[in-house]
Amino acid sequence: MIIDCHGHYTTEPKDLHRFRKEQTEAVKNKSPLPSKASLKMSDDEIRETVEGAQLKLQRERGTDVTIFSPRASGMGHHIGDESVSLEWSQICNDLIARVISLYPKNFIGVCQLPQSPGVPPKNSIAELERCITKLGFVGCNLNPDPSGGYFNAPPLTDKWWYPIYEKLVELDVPAMIHVSGCCNPAQHTTGSYYLNADTMAFMQLIVSDLFKDFPTLKLIIPHGGGAVPFHWGRFRGIALNSGRPELDEIMKNNIFFDTCVYHQPGIDLLAKVVPTDNILFASEMVGAVKGIDPKSGHYFDDTKRYVENAAGLSAADKQKIFEGNAYRVYPRLKDTIARQAR
Amino acid sequence: MIIDCHGHYTTEPKDLHRFRKEQTEAVKNKSPLPSKASLKMSDDEIRETVEGAQLKLQRERGTDVTIFSPRASGMGHHIGDESVSLEWSQICNDLIARVISLYPKNFIGVCQLPQSPGVPPKNSIAELERCITKLGFVGCNLNPDPSGGYFNAPPLTDKWWYPIYEKLVELDVPAMIHVSGCCNPAQHTTGSYYLNADTMAFMQLIVSDLFKDFPTLKLIIPHGGGAVPFHWGRFRGIALNSGRPELDEIMKNNIFFDTCVYHQPGIDLLAKVVPTDNILFASEMVGAVKGIDPKSGHYFDDTKRYVENAAGLSAADKQKIFEGNAYRVYPRLKDTIARQAR
Repeated sequence: MIIDCHGHYTTEPKDLHRFRKEQTEAVKNKSPLPSKASLKMSDDEIRETVEGAQLKLQRERGTDVTIFSPRASGMGHHIGDESVSLEWSQICNDLIARVISLYPKNFIGVCQLPQSPGVPPKNSIAELERCITKLGFVGCNLNPDPSGGYFNAPPLTDKWWYPIYEKLVELDVPAMIHVSGCCNPAQHTTGSYYLNADTMAFMQLIVSDLFKDFPTLKLIIPHGGGAVPFHWGRFRGIALNSGRPELDEIMKNNIFFDTCVYHQPGIDLLAKVVPTDNILFASEMVGAVKGIDPKSGHYFDDTKRYVENAAGLSAADKQKIFEGNAYRVYPRLKDTIARQAR
Repeated sequence: MIIDCHGHYTTEPKDLHRFRKEQTEAVKNKSPLPSKASLKMSDDEIRETVEGAQLKLQRERGTDVTIFSPRASGMGHHIGDESVSLEWSQICNDLIARVISLYPKNFIGVCQLPQSPGVPPKNSIAELERCITKLGFVGCNLNPDPSGGYFNAPPLTDKWWYPIYEKLVELDVPAMIHVSGCCNPAQHTTGSYYLNADTMAFMQLIVSDLFKDFPTLKLIIPHGGGAVPFHWGRFRGIALNSGRPELDEIMKNNIFFDTCVYHQPGIDLLAKVVPTDNILFASEMVGAVKGIDPKSGHYFDDTKRYVENAAGLSAADKQKIFEGNAYRVYPRLKDTIARQAR
């Protein structure tokens, strides 16, 4: 079984965009918010949005299951206040649940959280709990920068975040550290901002005692770990100079990178420096980079090809990356796949 | 000849730190600023600070000349106002000139600029001009985020920056895009902040028309280009999807990466994906990562070894990286080396 641990619902029904636009305008103009009841998204329309996109690509590329969450750039935690973020998150998470109810064999749910700048992460616990226990999701996306581009939240290792980690541990689900759309003109959402947040998060974690406090907490850093594998020696050196152990040791049961790296030499490097046990297969499709690489003739985000062709990975390594590691990182995944396949 | 294009004076005389500490405290307390005349740094002391560090490492590693600028993390553009930044920059640049006057065969000067948050970059022109024409420097470090960690300056492609580019072009000198010390607790100065600024800058440049407006402007993105080579496919895909040409074409005569990447697989990747013509040898010594890699037995920042051992680089490629490209990127370099060697 090939499990893609990083997919977003980026082909949402049109009326969702209409609603969000109205919600955003209302926030800006301090006018009445649109009604949730106004949303019109039929099952047929939802089917249409995934049949020609995620499902088609799953079939073409030969992947089986996608761990699926709302569009990351759409979370927009910086838009409006906490209540706006909560309503929007509930709508987006419920929509993921509807996609799953239509295609239970193809998608497994991960939720967005109703974060908001300056609001304690503990306020996101109720929605997290609802998504895991009521909707049957297996994890969440945690935004380390609800400001949308200014990196002004406390580091992920600050006690500010501890209540949400306690709940993650209690529910036995991991978080993918994932920022949302960037409202800072200096950073490009998918080009620099996502990667910068990944690099920032890793650096925060490796010089902290977070995993002494939460030995079973599992955090996924997407997009191959940002800049980290390319600068593995830099991060190793800084860790060792700070009296920390080797990165392999620090990452061991707690930090995982995905394979959203869109060229063969990048995946080769990832496979070479990062322990195989800490790599999860993912493509981020349909996502950050659409289109076909004119040099290879294949989709940039068809990462399965790169993993299959990666220098130095044995068949057993590939099995871990494609499937085995995912069960370890998402403890609820195996049962959820079995339940949804019934 | 082996030219290291990225070295900082990170072993400054003690009294410089005393002065800066007093200056910073005075800014904080709104008390009188320390006098520049109080600074006591003898030639002997300056000799001592480099003999056991940069010069020793040049000899041991077999590099010939270092393009040398004030400590990057020490620029501290967010400290105090424009006049504080100007005085501090003049002191730091004059100190580089003194090091060069003592070791003209070993060091070539690059200046820091008296930037300050919210202050137009054009206000840095006078100090740039002084350093190039009076002190004989060959380039400058340009900080894309004078806030020290919040990335809230206009993108480098904004007209805000154009006056400084006009002067760079007129003087025929390049700028290295380099942030300073980070005052944002979410980002680690040398671990994530430097790399994030590099990645941010590259992304700004590749979707802009900056080099149509300044066809001869040369910008160096240090630390191997941040996350870019590892995510070469991602950036290629985003560029092509935005109707831009291939990255090779975009970078051609305008964007250059250095080799401050502290492990062999990283340098191998850099050499594989980035055009050889756009790579400059550099070590950032004595810099971000001190100490010896316990696995290799060599200094992390001894990047000459990695370049020498890089898979797929011919002798001609290595000559370009070690020497040839530097003359192209720093048009004043050849004459300056000759003049200082007399």
